[in-house]
Amino acid sequence: MITINEHYNKLQASYLFSDIARRVSTYQSSNPDKTIIKLGIGDVTRPLPAACIEAFHRAVDEMATDEGFRGYGPEQGYDFLRDAIAENDFASRGASIAADEIFVSDGAKCDSGNIQELFSTDITIAIPDPVYPVYLDTNVMAGRTGEYSDGRYNGIVYLESTRENNFVPALPDEPVDLIYLCFPNNPTGSTISRKELKNWVDYARDNKALILYDAAYESFIQDNSLPKTIYEIEGAEEVAVEFRSFSKSGGFTGTRCAFTVVPKACKAYTASGEEQPLHALWNRRHCTKFNGVSYPVQRAAEALYSKAGKQQSKALVDYYMNNARLIRTAMAELGYDCVGGDNSPYIWIAGNVDSWEFFDLLLDKAGVVCTPGAGFGKCGEGYIRLSAFNSYENVSTAMERIKEAIS
Amino acid sequence: MITINEHYNKLQASYLFSDIARRVSTYQSSNPDKTIIKLGIGDVTRPLPAACIEAFHRAVDEMATDEGFRGYGPEQGYDFLRDAIAENDFASRGASIAADEIFVSDGAKCDSGNIQELFSTDITIAIPDPVYPVYLDTNVMAGRTGEYSDGRYNGIVYLESTRENNFVPALPDEPVDLIYLCFPNNPTGSTISRKELKNWVDYARDNKALILYDAAYESFIQDNSLPKTIYEIEGAEEVAVEFRSFSKSGGFTGTRCAFTVVPKACKAYTASGEEQPLHALWNRRHCTKFNGVSYPVQRAAEALYSKAGKQQSKALVDYYMNNARLIRTAMAELGYDCVGGDNSPYIWIAGNVDSWEFFDLLLDKAGVVCTPGAGFGKCGEGYIRLSAFNSYENVSTAMERIKEAIS
Repeated sequence: MITINEHYNKLQASYLFSDIARRVSTYQSSNPDKTIIKLGIGDVTRPLPAACIEAFHRAVDEMATDEGFRGYGPEQGYDFLRDAIAENDFASRGASIAADEIFVSDGAKCDSGNIQELFSTDITIAIPDPVYPVYLDTNVMAGRTGEYSDGRYNGIVYLESTRENNFVPALPDEPVDLIYLCFPNNPTGSTISRKELKNWVDYARDNKALILYDAAYESFIQDNSLPKTIYEIEGAEEVAVEFRSFSKSGGFTGTRCAFTVVPKACKAYTASGEEQPLHALWNRRHCTKFNGVSYPVQRAAEALYSKAGKQQSKALVDYYMNNARLIRTAMAELGYDCVGGDNSPYIWIAGNVDSWEFFDLLLDKAGVVCTPGAGFGKCGEGYIRLSAFNSYENVSTAMERIKEAIS
Repeated sequence: MITINEHYNKLQASYLFSDIARRVSTYQSSNPDKTIIKLGIGDVTRPLPAACIEAFHRAVDEMATDEGFRGYGPEQGYDFLRDAIAENDFASRGASIAADEIFVSDGAKCDSGNIQELFSTDITIAIPDPVYPVYLDTNVMAGRTGEYSDGRYNGIVYLESTRENNFVPALPDEPVDLIYLCFPNNPTGSTISRKELKNWVDYARDNKALILYDAAYESFIQDNSLPKTIYEIEGAEEVAVEFRSFSKSGGFTGTRCAFTVVPKACKAYTASGEEQPLHALWNRRHCTKFNGVSYPVQRAAEALYSKAGKQQSKALVDYYMNNARLIRTAMAELGYDCVGGDNSPYIWIAGNVDSWEFFDLLLDKAGVVCTPGAGFGKCGEGYIRLSAFNSYENVSTAMERIKEAIS
């Protein structure tokens, strides 16, 4: 009899986005003339940069010729892209990451979900709250948690991000082996300083722990004193894996390209304490279960590192950051406590009421859709997330409507 | 302490392709003027069909505009592609597969490697020998095998494909829960009849087992009486998942698009025997760990189902099948027992010597590279695989050289 992995049955069905859709639909039925403005979703809206489009077309044309056609590429990505990443994203920040420590993939979601396969099932895992649900769900599926009760899975060490700690969690009181961190944070938009990040790296080194550092939003960092990669921190290459993505910096959410950095110095251990290089393990997984990213897509991603591509990518980020400032300023003027929006596209807003009540208020009074913070974890209760991913015109109108409705 | 999944350490390092590369390199050094012809690799060589190129360009252009831009798509794939697949690949063969039972992905390798996550670790697995290594390796990584000894992993039921059974394995003597089948087969090129496949479907239904049916090479089937999908067999939708790919039919090995069919009627069970629909489990995995295939790539794949796309895809397959016939005829004329090449791009040749000896003979005497069958499993010993994926000119030259060397 073919029996299932019953850990899947521990997963809580997520009603977050279906609940949102239902409420939006009900509102639209009662207000057929109202244009609803959606600031809930973390998806980009602007076209791909021109440099990417040109490179994409060129690569598609290559695939039409005998000479230019490419079949299977290297699972880890083409050297042209890995070299561009190593130079522009790491060497430029003083971080010594070699091209062959970079694994190109079709998404940071896949990578951050798949990486847990490398580890034993009995490790202790620390996961922030609130958090992007993939870290937690993939560990539930793998059997690293107990049952769900009172809004949390047993067996997970939750790292609480609250106003009190400025949305940067404190080091755990109990020993943990695997630590998920995400900065600039999704959903709170908070950032971490070099000093704070060094504390985590030191903790990991002292405890033979590993940090999984999700830096998918690093391109939104405006304050150059903030770390854009964990490898700016001394010793991080021994204890950290980093996830990066072109989804937000290049508008690639529908085009699909990302990468994961696994330094050769990065170690894990057998149960008996023998060192094992993570690079070899991840390489084995990548080559066994993945067949590389589409060649034209890799050429489009490479173009983000050209002179024109860098300017266009910056213009894309600037556009959204202008929206973010507008949202944060407007909400702050209305008296709400806000975090994010300065070095991230997300603004995390304390509503002083429960998340869904605040959601309903914005929808009913202003026709604006946000994401209720409670959907990201227990510590998200009382907050909403607004996203800068929309047109400037829509964001302006949304803020005017909210001001009118609330003040 | 961060401890690893020690099952990874059971994996045998594969020296197959590095051994081949080393021998080829040695030969080339001693024979600098000789042009080596590679018939070893399972990778296509011809350009993408014109219909795909056009659709690819159009979709890239859409991504350059405010109106046409697409961010995150449905994880399961766009309806335009799922509908085209359901109609052309299944309805046309009398198989009733709905569009929402089709999950578009970036590769059959990923899907056939990931699917095992849905099942418990204590099931009994049947895997053909010889075989595409992904089925086995991903189960080793997941801890479903014992150690490796004498060329095999303990705990796996090997389904031997030999000359005696015409390279279609017999039903297992002991009960198994999960069965991997691949037809047209990689590496043997053998096919399965409707009657033989019905035996497997009946076995699965009688034993509450599940068949994972890899049909990545179905487009090469010339004999219309052979099943192109397992869902041509009555009741298969209850007990089979099917993997398909555009890699070979559309030349997509470097472009990346495939799909997996999980019918809603397909069931697995909890340990206590409660039925669980596989569709919901796979959907949960797909949405949690995958973010959809690149939009322009999906448009390029859709174009394979247009009138022009179908003709061009057929011409591509015909081109390789002409090579396959040439190889099979030439090798048979030389007195070798051959299978495949009639409904598949692979020809599996009994060399009457060990695999590596035959490999060396073809390389040293003819400058032709094959794949030694022993690299695909114990039952591959004594065989080599030749692939039709090369230019007609190269294949002709290779066959002339082999004839000259051997006769």
